[in-house]
Amino acid sequence: MTAPEGGHLDPASWHAPVVGVIGGLGPAATAVFLDVLVRATDARSDQEHLDLLVSQHSSTPDRTAKILDTDGTAADPGPVIAADARMLERAGVDLLVLPCNTAHHFVRGVHESTSVPFLSIVEVTAAAAARAVEGTGRPVAVFATEGNVHAEVFQDALRDVGAEACVPDRALQDRINTIIYEQVKANRPVDRELFEGCVDEALAAGAGTVVLGCTELSVVYDQQGFRGDPRMIDSLTELARHTITAACRPLAPAFA
Amino acid sequence: MTAPEGGHLDPASWHAPVVGVIGGLGPAATAVFLDVLVRATDARSDQEHLDLLVSQHSSTPDRTAKILDTDGTAADPGPVIAADARMLERAGVDLLVLPCNTAHHFVRGVHESTSVPFLSIVEVTAAAAARAVEGTGRPVAVFATEGNVHAEVFQDALRDVGAEACVPDRALQDRINTIIYEQVKANRPVDRELFEGCVDEALAAGAGTVVLGCTELSVVYDQQGFRGDPRMIDSLTELARHTITAACRPLAPAFA
Repeated sequence: MTAPEGGHLDPASWHAPVVGVIGGLGPAATAVFLDVLVRATDARSDQEHLDLLVSQHSSTPDRTAKILDTDGTAADPGPVIAADARMLERAGVDLLVLPCNTAHHFVRGVHESTSVPFLSIVEVTAAAAARAVEGTGRPVAVFATEGNVHAEVFQDALRDVGAEACVPDRALQDRINTIIYEQVKANRPVDRELFEGCVDEALAAGAGTVVLGCTELSVVYDQQGFRGDPRMIDSLTELARHTITAACRPLAPAFA
Repeated sequence: MTAPEGGHLDPASWHAPVVGVIGGLGPAATAVFLDVLVRATDARSDQEHLDLLVSQHSSTPDRTAKILDTDGTAADPGPVIAADARMLERAGVDLLVLPCNTAHHFVRGVHESTSVPFLSIVEVTAAAAARAVEGTGRPVAVFATEGNVHAEVFQDALRDVGAEACVPDRALQDRINTIIYEQVKANRPVDRELFEGCVDEALAAGAGTVVLGCTELSVVYDQQGFRGDPRMIDSLTELARHTITAACRPLAPAFA
């Protein structure tokens, strides 16, 4: 075997398949993703857990700012995300994941510049939501960033799996924005009741389930005691579950 | 600028200094470390957080098993840790950290094979503990893995900063081992009272403070509500604080 060059992983000591995480979008969500991966893997020692290479690239330009950009001045996260994906592929990862829903608007660049499999948080979450509302005739409420909703990331993915999306009205979206930007991303205390009120309002308006389609909302779900709550489908949890399965590891009972 | 090759970070889009995290030792502790870094940075948006490249190398051979190895059969984590450090350096990181205390027994290989600065969790924690007992005449209780205690990792570091170490007796060490191996590393519920009882026993026996010198105990400290508890000095928190300062970012008020 030749010595690894550049930033390559040494194939002799890394347990394949190695998962590459395009992270930092945002950084809190990536930390929670790694923690959920540990808790969701049925392992009895460190060595039974997944091997991952993680780019915690916090300074990646804001995704929503670019999607909503009207005068062409916002920095473009697309090339940065694609470059990180190529970096991880060249380092030797076998699978790529991106624990950020809004960034999926920019994944074409990842697909065009890498050849390792890419596991989509949006696709696995839309599939889980479609199963949750199957036969009910009810739509799926999409709680996401303004950019995600504007770019119709989840609306398209739900349509692809035969489910109908409903998006929050202005007042509800404003409250979701407050939780995402003024609380989680701003490192401030989260208003648990504000979050739960948003979920209940969407269900009362007719939704069959609520998709937490923004990893900052996944942080609230995880840290404020909503894990397992039947009212919602959490995108970060769905990605963790599918990542572990794709890496050929068993799921812990609470996540199976 | 030439295009980045291998697994190199694109210097145009990464915010220097980039921190390289030799992680996965164990994986839960690395996830908590990333989470504490986010909470301990005084930031108001994603982009103000640190940029990091993280090797979550869970399959790295067990550190304590190698230190306590009597018949030469245990796999050696030293070359794996050194190879990961080289990989991160070649990828372009500016600073290396290793969020695992026991692994510091093996860091000579990191020092010998890399030239970027290395921030030691053991040194920063020993310094904080020495300040905590200064003028009291009391020793510092070291709660760590069997391997860490056997290799005298913290005893040496405390001596270097003029403090005296005391290590648990057999019965107390057995209970600490239970928390580390049968609870945190085994992905099982943590016995909060068992943990707190260990701390109180060490203080009642004369220690001036307790160093949580194992990142699995840092997970307990973080997740069971001990943050800020004046009875203990947490190694992962000390490393996070010094990493943020070394990366020239401001500390959040609760961590300053």
